[in-house]
Amino acid sequence: MLKLGFLRWSACRFSPFIIDHSSSSSGFCFSQEQTISFALRSQMGSFRTLSQSSSRLLFRQLFEKESYTYTYLLADSFHPDKPALLIDPVDKTVDRDLSLIRELGLKLLYAMNTHVHADHITGTGLIKGKVPDVKSVISKASGAKADVFIEPGDKITFGDLFLDVRATPGHTAGCVTYVTGDGPDQPQPRMAFTGDALLIRGCGRTDFQSGNSGQLYKSVHSQIFTLPKETLLYPGHDYKGFTVTTVGDEMLYNPRLSKDEETFISIMQNLNLAYPKMIDVALPANLVCGLQDLESKAN
Amino acid sequence: MLKLGFLRWSACRFSPFIIDHSSSSSGFCFSQEQTISFALRSQMGSFRTLSQSSSRLLFRQLFEKESYTYTYLLADSFHPDKPALLIDPVDKTVDRDLSLIRELGLKLLYAMNTHVHADHITGTGLIKGKVPDVKSVISKASGAKADVFIEPGDKITFGDLFLDVRATPGHTAGCVTYVTGDGPDQPQPRMAFTGDALLIRGCGRTDFQSGNSGQLYKSVHSQIFTLPKETLLYPGHDYKGFTVTTVGDEMLYNPRLSKDEETFISIMQNLNLAYPKMIDVALPANLVCGLQDLESKAN
Repeated sequence: MLKLGFLRWSACRFSPFIIDHSSSSSGFCFSQEQTISFALRSQMGSFRTLSQSSSRLLFRQLFEKESYTYTYLLADSFHPDKPALLIDPVDKTVDRDLSLIRELGLKLLYAMNTHVHADHITGTGLIKGKVPDVKSVISKASGAKADVFIEPGDKITFGDLFLDVRATPGHTAGCVTYVTGDGPDQPQPRMAFTGDALLIRGCGRTDFQSGNSGQLYKSVHSQIFTLPKETLLYPGHDYKGFTVTTVGDEMLYNPRLSKDEETFISIMQNLNLAYPKMIDVALPANLVCGLQDLESKAN
Repeated sequence: MLKLGFLRWSACRFSPFIIDHSSSSSGFCFSQEQTISFALRSQMGSFRTLSQSSSRLLFRQLFEKESYTYTYLLADSFHPDKPALLIDPVDKTVDRDLSLIRELGLKLLYAMNTHVHADHITGTGLIKGKVPDVKSVISKASGAKADVFIEPGDKITFGDLFLDVRATPGHTAGCVTYVTGDGPDQPQPRMAFTGDALLIRGCGRTDFQSGNSGQLYKSVHSQIFTLPKETLLYPGHDYKGFTVTTVGDEMLYNPRLSKDEETFISIMQNLNLAYPKMIDVALPANLVCGLQDLESKAN
């Protein structure tokens, strides 16, 4: 289990900040190390989980049909300002996502990626262009540009809810899994957004982007399979129409990751997959929040 | 609100039955009017909702990408036998669904339809062929064949959970919406499976299969919009990548059904939609549980 730490800002205009909870306004005070909370706006409709406290999580799973990508919207519906974040937004569905966020009365704070995607272009850059206060977030290990670089053990707080950052490299060197907080006021069962480290009955390929099968195996077994068995796992993609799984189900039925490490590595070495058709377009774009064209024009 | 009644069996070998809860075996005793419960098998992984009691609902949303159809799997995960039901299974994804049910350790009791679909072939017939004890379920008003005909006010019980049947005609004359039970031991917020009566920010067309715009408007406003605003609505399809909505959100933002009845009827009259490409294949098949070919061969 990674030690909980704090969010670190990359070299952007504002460094670390804390919003003062004692004030109903959204006054910011800045500090060198920081827990981040948000001040925003509100409305109805939440995907509720087990405990009373969990009903505060507004949750929407969204699908992009060309790349089979899932985008996740999370918000603290009990907080007067309804702070929200998006995990893995896609460029093609940015207008849909922002329209939903507007209708739900949320204030989007973060557009986050689990990793540098090779199969679609991230929507983070477009979102920042349309909602200027939004911060893009990605792992420091990804090597990509963003406003906020996260590291293992960091905690991303939105209202009274938070996500833990766990390093799950192997599909790419910079992959992370975001896990809802562990505590009496956090959703139960916990929810983990695994990106491509773990897919439902599968996993991301390991033959590009510093991929490493042995490392992926260790990541999943040490960072995901150690979560409670009832933890709900939300993957970065699904190609068969599944929407969610659990730690317990994947430990038993994942045809790759339920095996021993040696067998897993052998399976991954013999997948014989085609060259990723979007990789040459997606990778350079995703290293700059999906805004390769705009960056080129500016240079 | 429709009065709660009891499930009625169609002319199949077994008429009404009650499983004796006092026995751990699955002994059946039959009666003329009946509440149905189930004795089955078990395992892990549930999509939990607000109240403690709601954690007993194991829930999976499944997607069929060619017809953009959602199939829903529900089970009572606390019951020793894990009784389960499928809403709107598709012929092409029957093997996926049955494999998942097997892995989750569920005993499938019912393969149910919200209506006679015109855009895909139901999986109910195939499922019955592979799992002989499963009963197909559809509304009496649909005019289709099935083992069990339900009517408004009926209650479909699986373990200690149940679904209410609400009549929501207008897309077709036989459309129903299945709503999770109202009670301290039932999931909170409630969940409604609306078929094509209500889609996320839309609704089913009303120009075929005895469709009637005025009737659809009245159905949605009297049977769905009267549910608590936080009720989670799960549609029969989505074409834009949404997975769930709420009563409150649709009352505000559904571009058709948030309008007055006259405007709604006018919108529906001017959709100018193409002839449904699957209707000539799907309708006759779905009137016999999707098994038109087998029925023809038998005759």
